[in-house]
Amino acid sequence: MAELNVDPYADLYARRTSGMSASEVRALFAVASRPEVVSLAGGMPYVQGIPQEDVFDVVAHVVSEQASTALQYGGGQGMPALRERLAMLMHEEGTEADPEDMVVTTGAQQALDLVGKVLIDPGDEIVVEAPSYVGALSAFSAYEPRFVQIELDDNGMVVERLEEALVKGARPKFVYTVPNFHNPAGVTMSTARREQLVALCREAHIPIVEDNPYGLLRFEGRSEPTLRSMDPQNVIYLGTVSKVFSPGLRVGWALAEPGVLQRMILAKEAADLCGSSFTMLVTERYLSGGRWRKNLQGLVDVYRSRRDAMLAALDEHFPDDATWTLPAGGFFVWVTLPGYFDTQAMLAAAVERRVAYVPGTAFHPDGRGRDKMRLAFCYPTEDDIVEGVRRLGALLADEEELYRSLSG
Amino acid sequence: MAELNVDPYADLYARRTSGMSASEVRALFAVASRPEVVSLAGGMPYVQGIPQEDVFDVVAHVVSEQASTALQYGGGQGMPALRERLAMLMHEEGTEADPEDMVVTTGAQQALDLVGKVLIDPGDEIVVEAPSYVGALSAFSAYEPRFVQIELDDNGMVVERLEEALVKGARPKFVYTVPNFHNPAGVTMSTARREQLVALCREAHIPIVEDNPYGLLRFEGRSEPTLRSMDPQNVIYLGTVSKVFSPGLRVGWALAEPGVLQRMILAKEAADLCGSSFTMLVTERYLSGGRWRKNLQGLVDVYRSRRDAMLAALDEHFPDDATWTLPAGGFFVWVTLPGYFDTQAMLAAAVERRVAYVPGTAFHPDGRGRDKMRLAFCYPTEDDIVEGVRRLGALLADEEELYRSLSG
Repeated sequence: MAELNVDPYADLYARRTSGMSASEVRALFAVASRPEVVSLAGGMPYVQGIPQEDVFDVVAHVVSEQASTALQYGGGQGMPALRERLAMLMHEEGTEADPEDMVVTTGAQQALDLVGKVLIDPGDEIVVEAPSYVGALSAFSAYEPRFVQIELDDNGMVVERLEEALVKGARPKFVYTVPNFHNPAGVTMSTARREQLVALCREAHIPIVEDNPYGLLRFEGRSEPTLRSMDPQNVIYLGTVSKVFSPGLRVGWALAEPGVLQRMILAKEAADLCGSSFTMLVTERYLSGGRWRKNLQGLVDVYRSRRDAMLAALDEHFPDDATWTLPAGGFFVWVTLPGYFDTQAMLAAAVERRVAYVPGTAFHPDGRGRDKMRLAFCYPTEDDIVEGVRRLGALLADEEELYRSLSG
Repeated sequence: MAELNVDPYADLYARRTSGMSASEVRALFAVASRPEVVSLAGGMPYVQGIPQEDVFDVVAHVVSEQASTALQYGGGQGMPALRERLAMLMHEEGTEADPEDMVVTTGAQQALDLVGKVLIDPGDEIVVEAPSYVGALSAFSAYEPRFVQIELDDNGMVVERLEEALVKGARPKFVYTVPNFHNPAGVTMSTARREQLVALCREAHIPIVEDNPYGLLRFEGRSEPTLRSMDPQNVIYLGTVSKVFSPGLRVGWALAEPGVLQRMILAKEAADLCGSSFTMLVTERYLSGGRWRKNLQGLVDVYRSRRDAMLAALDEHFPDDATWTLPAGGFFVWVTLPGYFDTQAMLAAAVERRVAYVPGTAFHPDGRGRDKMRLAFCYPTEDDIVEGVRRLGALLADEEELYRSLSG
């Protein structure tokens, strides 16, 4: 950032901004948005799967029947009618929710920010998974915590590691987890691990922050119970309509017990007064009919086919000593390469070969993850996925050959 | 907040939450929203002044032509096409703006939050006006500053007082001001004061945060130059479409030099990833035709008539020893009562008499302002304004009589 050399405000910035930096990855993604590049990087939902006439009907209704509400300020907690629909969405996954315990947020991302704002003092420990959702790391980082990273395996967070950390003296303000179809790891926490985690956190008096954007995007098998349903008093639940309807409307929510909830609402009002009445009404209307269920089924079918295409292409094109997760839902496959690969260093070469991914380092606060990459199957077509994985496989083969020739 | 007595998280909250409290005023406002109460409290714009067919046209265009963009994530800085329209709005007030220097925010309120996040460390001094916009005080308070309050007169901030504070050793991170049609004071900073303020802050190396939600709502007279136009390098400018179009879309913006801007964009991405693509496109489309200008003129005419109705009613119904400001635009009249009045204590009695206002204490961080009240003329009809001021005047007369009988 060359301009900072002459930045007249250089001595005025708050300390928390020192952790805010535009990564080099960002610059590469600007290049990666060119049409000839197959992007397996971004987690954009396939919004084209929502029929335009359904959107038109919903929006036309809102403008015709509720214009003066849609255009006006609303309350900080979000519209009661919408909160009822969002509680209904949670009921779909077997979780009971009282709309009174809910605050509507600007996507689940704002809920992450509000959780950080309400619970983290500088220097406080918080537990995150390794890897963890990059947006949660950014949101929490603004409040200057120390991250305690707990590794994942195919059954989700390894709760024994958390137990060990607590025994060794960790005193986290909360435990953050994405139990279903993890971003970036693609794995889902098993029932046994959920029971273990809920019991441990309750015993240790540590609230759990359960982030569940992908729960309704299950391709096969049976839903796991949400952590919130297992211990409502000790779980702050975060949801969003970004993956079941649209991220462009920025509607998410948090469910929390009264003390936390009241503080989150006050923090929300200080941060942006209230959410968009317009997009809240549009979301409420969309979720009030039967169409959302049919459209969601269509999306799940598309994502399943794309997941299948990606897994088949990985089998065909990736080196034998690479491993990857097998997601039963959601958007992402997490690839582990042999230790001599550096996915961050390799990204420029990948973009040159017209394919993009997110390096594993993005998902750790401490530079770990150089041998990992996140591949998203949510947005590109099956053909593009196969072609992208093929290009990446060819790059990996060349890199491997180079490594062997240099070390041989 | 009774529930806090048994709040299991009581020991976990961040220190910054200690300043977040739901005021008693809030509870009264819930009562004040009953239809029989004339509310002179809220600053809700008269969105019914925007013809429904204009909204329908705009929204139908967005859904028909840009649905997949409207429903998708966007960039953290906000859409380039919208930023161009917002620069055009600033041009209306004679301020040149480069869309590259702009970040789109969730109303101007989020811009206030981002300014605080990027510039305030706990204990830092910041300058605000006395009185000051309550939402700015809330947004900044989350970052635990010490407020340096500088009084206003009919020509806006008394810059000599700021100069004195600096001489006495104040070292504020920034100076926050609402120069046009101040909220809550209704006054406008004179050209001379603007020149004084800009020169002083430039000399002292203190950025100015200029919040200008009402600038285009001028009822008479000539526009003052924005502070930003007088010193672009040292002024962070905040704007919003909430008052010229709709607050329900939550579209505002900040204009800042590159170092501050980049940090605000990163902070915005951490806080909510991006704004609503849908409401950005709707706003862009609305501002692209000629209708916004005609509709704005209509709104200004309505607000002017309501201002006139309020000022006439105050003359008729308020005590001789009360004074008030004479706003040339915007939403608010600021009333100063004789010192024995306590507008906070009196609010419950006012609501009982079916009229509401905001007590002056809301606009000071330190409990000052008990003899002041903010009256908003933006939302109620002229008849309701007259009736509301009449009810308030009767209450003031009774209170005055009570005071004289007790002290006589």
